[in-house]
Amino acid sequence: MGKKIFGVDLGGTTVKMGLFDEEGNVEEKWEIVTRKEENGSYILPDIAASIKEKATKRGISGEDIIGVGIGVPGPVDDNGVIYKAANLGWGVFSIKETLSGLLDGIRVEAGNDANVAALGEMWQGGGKGYRNLVAVTLGTGVGGGIIINGKILTGATGAAGEIGHIHVDDEETEVCGCGNCGCLEQYASATGVVRLANRRLAKDDAPSILRGKNLNAKVVWDAVKAGDEVAIEIAKVFGEYLGSGLASIACVVNPEVFVIGGGVSKAGEILMDYFVEPYKKHVFHASKDVKFALATLGNDAGIYGAARLVLD
Amino acid sequence: MGKKIFGVDLGGTTVKMGLFDEEGNVEEKWEIVTRKEENGSYILPDIAASIKEKATKRGISGEDIIGVGIGVPGPVDDNGVIYKAANLGWGVFSIKETLSGLLDGIRVEAGNDANVAALGEMWQGGGKGYRNLVAVTLGTGVGGGIIINGKILTGATGAAGEIGHIHVDDEETEVCGCGNCGCLEQYASATGVVRLANRRLAKDDAPSILRGKNLNAKVVWDAVKAGDEVAIEIAKVFGEYLGSGLASIACVVNPEVFVIGGGVSKAGEILMDYFVEPYKKHVFHASKDVKFALATLGNDAGIYGAARLVLD
Repeated sequence: MGKKIFGVDLGGTTVKMGLFDEEGNVEEKWEIVTRKEENGSYILPDIAASIKEKATKRGISGEDIIGVGIGVPGPVDDNGVIYKAANLGWGVFSIKETLSGLLDGIRVEAGNDANVAALGEMWQGGGKGYRNLVAVTLGTGVGGGIIINGKILTGATGAAGEIGHIHVDDEETEVCGCGNCGCLEQYASATGVVRLANRRLAKDDAPSILRGKNLNAKVVWDAVKAGDEVAIEIAKVFGEYLGSGLASIACVVNPEVFVIGGGVSKAGEILMDYFVEPYKKHVFHASKDVKFALATLGNDAGIYGAARLVLD
Repeated sequence: MGKKIFGVDLGGTTVKMGLFDEEGNVEEKWEIVTRKEENGSYILPDIAASIKEKATKRGISGEDIIGVGIGVPGPVDDNGVIYKAANLGWGVFSIKETLSGLLDGIRVEAGNDANVAALGEMWQGGGKGYRNLVAVTLGTGVGGGIIINGKILTGATGAAGEIGHIHVDDEETEVCGCGNCGCLEQYASATGVVRLANRRLAKDDAPSILRGKNLNAKVVWDAVKAGDEVAIEIAKVFGEYLGSGLASIACVVNPEVFVIGGGVSKAGEILMDYFVEPYKKHVFHASKDVKFALATLGNDAGIYGAARLVLD
């Protein structure tokens, strides 16, 4: 029946899991609950039990399994050791060895969830066909994952790709969640877009369909699409910050492609109209011809990337 | 007598060359002229002849040579292909294959000169003992080289580490050599320091030992060391820009250490007094404990790094 891979995306509430073939086709997807009691000590045994159960049900033997990949919400080094995941109650230990031990020695690879999702987009998503990419997640915050020559760039303390905290504004007085002021995340995340919108709306009385609405990123982008002039101004400010931030990233790692995902990216191609020009204005000429693509795997990027971890 | 390596640093005027043992000790250094006539077609044959002559003189046979590494002033991909070096008259071709052919099949590896110098500082210089570093060269411009897990980060078009063109000021109206405004290089290079000094001196009549002097980076830093208040103001502005730029780099690649070199770095440890605090202010917490070191190999970094290329 061909070799199989299990991809696991461990989140704070649920564990997403997928069964893949070597070509990256997902054969089945399912979820289990993340049990965080007892400092998260049930989590890996629960995952191992679920994998074993699925394998038994489908008649997949140990020799048919190439391995199990897992993305986790915390810094993970190149040896599969996690350095604390406060959200799960975890301290420092080898996920790779522990989970492999629970799975009778099957090969396990582990990575940080944002980095693993970037790998997924490279394998089967918006970055397919590329081996040097930066995945940018415009969600509640701004996250990132960097892939160099097909492999995750981890960094010295697992913090490579923390692009939400690139400094893009010297004048900012509101404080970012990280304690600094002027981080990219303060403008380009879903909450950042709302912040920019509220700021613009408070500036004067210019008419806008945004007034009186319960704002979120979708409402703002819908207004941009509807041609609302105030919303378009907001989108331009958003685009200036995002373009400038991506240009700085390109000066450092010179990727082939930026893959844009996360909630804000659901606005679609219209996003490009606002940040690509500022990007080109700011970036060093050697990185001007970088490609931009939208992420296509959505919440499944994590299981795809996790599965891809064991193909190296 | 042990295996030998030749390291070659190809510049626009001279070719620096070194004979190394495997441990990274340089046994002899010499230079030849870079002949740029005929679109640089003499350059590689001259280098090959010089290596053969040196090997013969020292009784080193082909089997004793691990290989020849070369750093060149232009973008070089991971396969040793150069994509134009206008300064030398070169187009696109494989340096690795061409030079190896001229050396009877001896292994050749090639890289961009700034990246190769970074590798040299990792091997035997200010970054010794680390495997994830960013080398920052504060010279006429600001250049960089990024080493990840002991290997050069090349980038999609050979432009990774072009950190001089990170955008650090939105208000700048003077144009950088690259055509943009507000690049790190406009403040942190040797010419940038002089520009900041001239700007500060023109602002008012505050007394300063810098007034009436023929300014260069050394003169400015000497005045800082002498306690000149205007010079100290200039150093603070320099430090704010450099610290902010390095913080953005750290958010992307999360290095273990920054190694600071180039002409401006000759001012010494006093530099750190001005940019480390702004760095810590701007950077994401996971990169706060990065190390800072001064480059120690000076103009020899290129031959060291070139030699190191063939040890992988």
